[in-house]
Amino acid sequence: MGSPSISRVSITKIKAGIAHPETDALAIEEPLQISIKKGNSTEPVSVTMRTPGNDEELASGLLITEGIIGHTAVITDFETPAADERNHITVILDENTTPDLRNTSRNSYSSSACGVCGKTTIDSIEINSPFIPLPEGPLIRHEVLIELPRTLRQHQSLFDSTGGLHAAALFDSSGEIRILREDIGRHNALDKLIGASFLEKCLPLRNCILLLSGRAGFELIQKAAMAGIPVVAAVGAPSSLAVSLAKSAGITLVGFLREDRFNIYSHEERIYCSS
Amino acid sequence: MGSPSISRVSITKIKAGIAHPETDALAIEEPLQISIKKGNSTEPVSVTMRTPGNDEELASGLLITEGIIGHTAVITDFETPAADERNHITVILDENTTPDLRNTSRNSYSSSACGVCGKTTIDSIEINSPFIPLPEGPLIRHEVLIELPRTLRQHQSLFDSTGGLHAAALFDSSGEIRILREDIGRHNALDKLIGASFLEKCLPLRNCILLLSGRAGFELIQKAAMAGIPVVAAVGAPSSLAVSLAKSAGITLVGFLREDRFNIYSHEERIYCSS
Repeated sequence: MGSPSISRVSITKIKAGIAHPETDALAIEEPLQISIKKGNSTEPVSVTMRTPGNDEELASGLLITEGIIGHTAVITDFETPAADERNHITVILDENTTPDLRNTSRNSYSSSACGVCGKTTIDSIEINSPFIPLPEGPLIRHEVLIELPRTLRQHQSLFDSTGGLHAAALFDSSGEIRILREDIGRHNALDKLIGASFLEKCLPLRNCILLLSGRAGFELIQKAAMAGIPVVAAVGAPSSLAVSLAKSAGITLVGFLREDRFNIYSHEERIYCSS
Repeated sequence: MGSPSISRVSITKIKAGIAHPETDALAIEEPLQISIKKGNSTEPVSVTMRTPGNDEELASGLLITEGIIGHTAVITDFETPAADERNHITVILDENTTPDLRNTSRNSYSSSACGVCGKTTIDSIEINSPFIPLPEGPLIRHEVLIELPRTLRQHQSLFDSTGGLHAAALFDSSGEIRILREDIGRHNALDKLIGASFLEKCLPLRNCILLLSGRAGFELIQKAAMAGIPVVAAVGAPSSLAVSLAKSAGITLVGFLREDRFNIYSHEERIYCSS
């Protein structure tokens, strides 16, 4: 019955005070338990509320962007328990890949003794990326940037009938779309995109532009840094910490990319106006 | 220098291919480490990325909505370490309040052996609310509902100059606004609202309407259930799991509340069209 990302429910639609029974498409939100297995040892890593689909990419991407495995890690397989195949995935690591679970934001955020105070804010919550600092380039024409949201909408409309999904899309420096992922959680959409790129052995994502359908918070810029993405453009607003991290990591951060305008918050040297 | 929630940065604004230097207001995003202290024992609970401001409400609300303390708990004080007063808060519990740290979604999501598989989805991730099932009422006129977003925007414009803040607002059943909280994280905005209500000894929030400026995911409905809120209206889309939880908890869930229309996803008996 159609996409595993969408659920249809009976609703009552009210318009101008008149009630109509209707069927509505909802973005599916379900927990995914992610575990890693190496040899005979299995360790739970995280549970994330996500839209089902591309779960192998999501799991791989989360391990990369949380710094649990490096970009040279080897994933040999994925397992899903027969009893709960929809909501549980185990990532099988090869014997030469050593996961680092100390560092994950979810763990250190929730369970360690304070990992925040006593250090400067960014230092304490940033995960080191092997691709930072980023090299120069690419150069992006402003006409390329302002076309990206339209291209995203055209592609997203194929998938999102719910009005409830965030998108992350990767473009090359001439504005050609390379990959698009959607999820009810904006972090998951980006983890799926980065996971797909990792599984295709495309990290770091040099010469790329990442477009986010919503706002750009710290964690999204952190994930972009972990994938070595040099240019991040968001349709919505960035946060203060996102701007600080983009500046220090060498990422060009563009916000409020709408119609013929946008704001450049960091490293504007990669953007040029040809006129 | 103005609000602690806003940071001003120099940016380059591009419009129609022309670059202008400008100053932009950003929503501040910083980590808040929340700990609880009882007697001589201090335990870290969570770190959340939030917009500074109303931190005592945020900490209290998170403890309530994660089921760590009940609505009859007594908070005797709040402490902030002098060295890091902006990003660390300790909630002091009175001797008769016993916190329950097993149950928190952040903990069980990230560190326990799988808490998801082997049980049905909602059962395994739902935190039991003392206020569920909700009693009947209140009855809400549809004309009241469709006015709420306008009222929210009027009030929010006083605070949000960044375009980057989510809002959660509480209205009485006649549409009078009672409380509004904003944050870069939608969960934080709602935790601040619920924490403020808890500190005012107003839980459960009977006869109220909660308005969310964005989408309605599972965790937001879970928080509403923990505060006993009977009607939740969102400007954006709900998720499948949010609708399932609203149905089982007895919450009226309204989505896509815009101009003169909205969708009712659950318990429509509380909404009536007077015409």
